[in-house]
Amino acid sequence: MDLRGGSLPSIITLLTDFGPEDGTVGVMKGVILGVAPQARLVDLSHGIPPQDIRAAAFVLGRTAAFFPEGTIHLVVVDPGVGTVRRPMAARLGAQFFVGPDNGVATRLMRRAERLSLTCAFFHLDRPERWLARVSDVFHGRDLFAPIAAHLANGTPLSELGSPMADPVRLALPEVEVTADGLVGEVEYVDHFGNLRTNILREDCGGRPPSTIRLPGLEIDGLVRTFGERAPGEWIAFWGSGDELCLAVVEGNAAARLGAAVGMKVEVRLGRA
Amino acid sequence: MDLRGGSLPSIITLLTDFGPEDGTVGVMKGVILGVAPQARLVDLSHGIPPQDIRAAAFVLGRTAAFFPEGTIHLVVVDPGVGTVRRPMAARLGAQFFVGPDNGVATRLMRRAERLSLTCAFFHLDRPERWLARVSDVFHGRDLFAPIAAHLANGTPLSELGSPMADPVRLALPEVEVTADGLVGEVEYVDHFGNLRTNILREDCGGRPPSTIRLPGLEIDGLVRTFGERAPGEWIAFWGSGDELCLAVVEGNAAARLGAAVGMKVEVRLGRA
Amino acid sequence: MDLRGGSLPSIITLLTDFGPEDGTVGVMKGVILGVAPQARLVDLSHGIPPQDIRAAAFVLGRTAAFFPEGTIHLVVVDPGVGTVRRPMAARLGAQFFVGPDNGVATRLMRRAERLSLTCAFFHLDRPERWLARVSDVFHGRDLFAPIAAHLANGTPLSELGSPMADPVRLALPEVEVTADGLVGEVEYVDHFGNLRTNILREDCGGRPPSTIRLPGLEIDGLVRTFGERAPGEWIAFWGSGDELCLAVVEGNAAARLGAAVGMKVEVRLGRA
Repeated sequence: MDLRGGSLPSIITLLTDFGPEDGTVGVMKGVILGVAPQARLVDLSHGIPPQDIRAAAFVLGRTAAFFPEGTIHLVVVDPGVGTVRRPMAARLGAQFFVGPDNGVATRLMRRAERLSLTCAFFHLDRPERWLARVSDVFHGRDLFAPIAAHLANGTPLSELGSPMADPVRLALPEVEVTADGLVGEVEYVDHFGNLRTNILREDCGGRPPSTIRLPGLEIDGLVRTFGERAPGEWIAFWGSGDELCLAVVEGNAAARLGAAVGMKVEVRLGRA
Repeated sequence: MDLRGGSLPSIITLLTDFGPEDGTVGVMKGVILGVAPQARLVDLSHGIPPQDIRAAAFVLGRTAAFFPEGTIHLVVVDPGVGTVRRPMAARLGAQFFVGPDNGVATRLMRRAERLSLTCAFFHLDRPERWLARVSDVFHGRDLFAPIAAHLANGTPLSELGSPMADPVRLALPEVEVTADGLVGEVEYVDHFGNLRTNILREDCGGRPPSTIRLPGLEIDGLVRTFGERAPGEWIAFWGSGDELCLAVVEGNAAARLGAAVGMKVEVRLGRA
Repeated sequence: MDLRGGSLPSIITLLTDFGPEDGTVGVMKGVILGVAPQARLVDLSHGIPPQDIRAAAFVLGRTAAFFPEGTIHLVVVDPGVGTVRRPMAARLGAQFFVGPDNGVATRLMRRAERLSLTCAFFHLDRPERWLARVSDVFHGRDLFAPIAAHLANGTPLSELGSPMADPVRLALPEVEVTADGLVGEVEYVDHFGNLRTNILREDCGGRPPSTIRLPGLEIDGLVRTFGERAPGEWIAFWGSGDELCLAVVEGNAAARLGAAVGMKVEVRLGRA
């Protein structure tokens, strides 16, 4: 099966904590285009908080499935660069992952398993496929970028590494079921200061959230859109990934509440 | 007329208030490339202040005309997402607009009218052209991205929506003519803190600005370039869009003056 | 010699201090794609501190060599725009530079000389190759973007300008050799707050740094990776460009030390 759509160029997405200012991302693109000049490069984010594997996993998890088959997701959020953590590539259904084996692919793996997609993991242990000189502190440029480019060129995973069975997984917090509802937590604070929780629509079993409580805040019921409330009002709604979100209309919820990732969110559920 | 230059790929520009960090822009690109793999994607800005339609209209207005014919401008600054505001696509001369019908295209419409270009507006009311599931809070991904991609593939506007006649327009502040000059306002504060006003070179009718006054500031005459004054000095000059600009050489004018969009700017004009 | 690899599209990198929010970079891309629709555009950085030629030279110097032959580096960090500073294009070995003649290419020139690459410099003095109207304050859009695009189309440098012999060079601080080691300085503070110095591995002549001193800080020896020390500890290591770097594991060294570019760094060297 050719996952890359015949003559169409391969897409490589890039997700890092490198920030946009130092040329760190640009140099990875230079390496990729030197190996795979036809590759299409798409930035997912370079604004992941430094070393925040969980945030990177969240961003990757909410975006990957919207890319075409054959897309290669190159992730470099890599606090363990140069240590014993393994460099990894994986096939997850019809897409690929390239990056450190540190749990950043956890959500992709969960989704693949939920959908019973074929997965295969490879330890990248073939230095002849990397740049000739490999820095101890920049595997993004010297190791992961060339590997992603080789994948874009159609090189099989089996020529880039050795099969491995036990990729690292993040222990993501689970939603707790209580007598009258659910307890979850803030999973991610987005650009607008909206609070995205780990409580999914499917967790509610068809029962509508009637009250949402955070420390110092109680919201009655959900709205469908921002436009249903006045600027400055708190709202709860299903986000674009079917996750429960809290926001202030035309305001910054995280700043207003002093909220951060990990803050508890209690949901009382009504009748189905 | 083929507006997309034969075999050349279509350009889709992206302008949002999504910020670069959450993958929100990246996921739109994934959707686009799934429908139109050949499209060229160019970021205009993702740093529009949240929900600031006027700032987005300014950035779009100063950039669109420099793109080739056939370019599709995809704009998602959309405080009314999911409400009755209409999703819209438009042909404005030889370019296209896709985004909410909330006035963000006002400057493109004004320019098209000034140049007597053919314009046509369409209400995007064909869900079969969108993603299968449409979130109430992310039309950028689920509705506008696929529409822009279909346009890039050459699908006519008439197959994507129904003609509409009355797109929303911003009531942009007009320049006032006074006894000895003009009164306008700060229209946009740019990355350098330069103050870009709504007073255009053509508003002066060939008469040179002799004095420019803002609250707490008076500047004598215009310079042609930054290099004509010492670092730290205030200057006034014609900006790259022929708009009157105020700046501090190698400094941040907005921070120094405490200036913001809407601050009044008085210009005394000399003799032609 | 065709430096652009036959039918493969040319790569144009972009490096500016324009920031990402105003559409200033996007409009340059629009101009480029109007002239050279096949060009591949790669952002190096648009977050160079305003007018900071030295920082831009650093970012360009650490990235350019990783791009393929034929790559065109378009740089617009240009405090002297519109003044007597010359617009310049250059061939440096198998790559090209387009930008102001203000020293921003200094590191590329040094590298080319060190490797005895053929260099040629051209004063861009052919307005017929620029946009029809040239703003005094935005040569990036009106002059440099079209020139880069013409180069991408294969137009020889000699048709875009006139040979010039004396490009401006930055007087970069040199590393000083002392009785027991070296004295250099902080050259660049990166996204993570890591301090990148101008002391290169080759400056040490095979002798290992035994002590590194900055005002208020002393670090014993080098580590190979971040993972060798606990979060919060200071480390010194060879960076991805073989430059001596100081960092706090999972912290921000610049913020913690109050360090900035130009801070002195003393290195005591051990025995080879």
